[in-house]
Amino acid sequence: MRNPLSDRIVEIQPSGIRKFFDIVNEMPDAISLGVGEPDFDTPWHIREEGIYSLERGRTYYTSNAGLMELREEIVNYTKRHLGLTYDPKSEVIITVGGSEAIDIALRAMLNPGDEVIMPEPCYVSYLPCIKLANGVPVSIELKEEDEFRLQKDQLLNAITDKTKVLILSYPNNPTGAIMTKEDLKAIAEVVVEKDLFVISDEIYSALTYGAQHTSIASFPGMQERTIVINGFSKAFAMTGWRLGYALGPKIILEQMTKIHQFCIMAAPTTSQYAAISALKNGEDDVEEMRKSYNLRRNYLMSAMRRMKLQCFEPYGAFYIFPCIKEFGMTSEEFATKLLQQEKVAVVPGSAFGECGEGFIRISYAYSIEELKEALLRVERFIDTLRKKA
Amino acid sequence: MRNPLSDRIVEIQPSGIRKFFDIVNEMPDAISLGVGEPDFDTPWHIREEGIYSLERGRTYYTSNAGLMELREEIVNYTKRHLGLTYDPKSEVIITVGGSEAIDIALRAMLNPGDEVIMPEPCYVSYLPCIKLANGVPVSIELKEEDEFRLQKDQLLNAITDKTKVLILSYPNNPTGAIMTKEDLKAIAEVVVEKDLFVISDEIYSALTYGAQHTSIASFPGMQERTIVINGFSKAFAMTGWRLGYALGPKIILEQMTKIHQFCIMAAPTTSQYAAISALKNGEDDVEEMRKSYNLRRNYLMSAMRRMKLQCFEPYGAFYIFPCIKEFGMTSEEFATKLLQQEKVAVVPGSAFGECGEGFIRISYAYSIEELKEALLRVERFIDTLRKKA
Repeated sequence: MRNPLSDRIVEIQPSGIRKFFDIVNEMPDAISLGVGEPDFDTPWHIREEGIYSLERGRTYYTSNAGLMELREEIVNYTKRHLGLTYDPKSEVIITVGGSEAIDIALRAMLNPGDEVIMPEPCYVSYLPCIKLANGVPVSIELKEEDEFRLQKDQLLNAITDKTKVLILSYPNNPTGAIMTKEDLKAIAEVVVEKDLFVISDEIYSALTYGAQHTSIASFPGMQERTIVINGFSKAFAMTGWRLGYALGPKIILEQMTKIHQFCIMAAPTTSQYAAISALKNGEDDVEEMRKSYNLRRNYLMSAMRRMKLQCFEPYGAFYIFPCIKEFGMTSEEFATKLLQQEKVAVVPGSAFGECGEGFIRISYAYSIEELKEALLRVERFIDTLRKKA
Repeated sequence: MRNPLSDRIVEIQPSGIRKFFDIVNEMPDAISLGVGEPDFDTPWHIREEGIYSLERGRTYYTSNAGLMELREEIVNYTKRHLGLTYDPKSEVIITVGGSEAIDIALRAMLNPGDEVIMPEPCYVSYLPCIKLANGVPVSIELKEEDEFRLQKDQLLNAITDKTKVLILSYPNNPTGAIMTKEDLKAIAEVVVEKDLFVISDEIYSALTYGAQHTSIASFPGMQERTIVINGFSKAFAMTGWRLGYALGPKIILEQMTKIHQFCIMAAPTTSQYAAISALKNGEDDVEEMRKSYNLRRNYLMSAMRRMKLQCFEPYGAFYIFPCIKEFGMTSEEFATKLLQQEKVAVVPGSAFGECGEGFIRISYAYSIEELKEALLRVERFIDTLRKKA
């Protein structure tokens, strides 16, 4: 039998996070600080709205772009938080999580060979999605000394005459970095001048600490060239519902909706009804969860200082990204040994791009009790390493 | 600003079904016989299981490939109905409806320029999904005189040295056609001899009338080269839940799972729990709905005979596909005039490929009352046309 596979998909590596957690699942007493998922159940009133919609027999397809009421609530939410105005009829699409939104945005925009600039470390899906959409990923190596914020010069150096799209992802997974207004303004100017488009993955936008999230779409000339991606998974603790959305200019959204219509049809109906309640009545819940994440963040940062583990202070998402270069091993070796010796799972920084090498990602979407026990083990582990050295 | 769009997506036409129903939605007293969706609410015990999972706070991601218990139930169901054995660990993936399964199967298998044979009339997504996956769609024109079954000679004539995949879709949307065991055997022999692969879309497999569904995967040498696609939307009246699945050889499923992981993450969790109940306790519900569809099918067929509207008898899905060539207009003209004059919406056959021209698709996923009223109007419409002629 001949080879059934596409050459391209074979060359794409499976996620480095995944590989790790297949091992963790086999270890009953392991503590995982690895998963990028809130540890909160979805707030009850949101679940209740989902339940109510099922009781009433709302089990049919919605329109391809999603329930109009939900699109309107998304537009209101975006107006409140980003100060941006979108038309719910033509500039919003409800997707299966932020993941689908990224995929269809790239598929709608790229011609074969178009370059997509992707500052790393970044979420593991961007590179495969770019390749699957016939694009060419171009990496920028973000630096810890810049607190992993994209610098104007780095962007300028990466642009060629084939560059079409910049993927921006702040608050960032895995680093927890955010961009200030000034940072974004400088980037926006380059984007407009070089006539690029931006896919701005703002899935963690509700989770910032001591700083307000700003969207790059809010700078002059940017809304018309930006696809803003957001969703319910992180802010509202709704990962399993698989619900996200994209906002952007009609000309692009129209084509994204076409792909969505043929390849997915519509987002899940129950989730869409529940999400209306999330946007209407869920912001207090988000604020409570945000406060809880912030406590844990502070707890982790003070533990890092106590252990003398170098770690820049992250102001967004729910990750810290400490440097482990002092131990003279790769981040994968470090993570593997930590798992074997102390049964604590973290994600090697290299899973998020080459320049993540020398770092590990620790998620603080875990209870203080779990974090406490895990950190005891991490401390014991690095003490042993330091004694050996 | 430069053109933000991919050339390929722009050239793909939006669905011909869609265009039509945007008009229908604006017409309050129109009767639609157009939508490909069961008119039944999802059976209560299935909804109840979804509700129960929400009450218990099961709002987290499942594994990428889906809940193991659901995969096991799918394997059992497939064994019961098709007599085929699959490994739930490596040969099943839970997807966002059959739609996503088709998309990722093509993306996992095609290299640029690979030809995909697509017997038409067929579901509107195949052509765009093939093009989006860099493939070249090759149409076979099925014939009413063959009851829209694929003939061995037609397949042989369409094969070139670039042919890689055949998309087979029986019971068929839009024609309602099914393939007999003998038909399938002849096709399977060609597929094996020519070393092709099959994507077999069996989403309507539970809805056959007076005939048993057979999968092409059950013929010698075929399971290893077939991706069987199925789901919960049609059989269990679960369209809004967005839940389907693919079964196939590990080597392909592995790559499909990779794409699914990066571009979608996982299917909705609530839907997965509900689907377990569908497979465990839902077959009586399916049988009841099937009987109801069959009554409507018989009712429609006798109406066709009364009206002397030529229509081959369909034995699957929930569509009839009458010929309207006698009226000397295109199927789009016919459908448009029917909608304008009698406010009944049907889908022009041309929406399903060029060789659907001269036919219209009527869905019988509507109550007898609706069908009765709609048919009165259709009869009045064609009487007027015949009188004019």
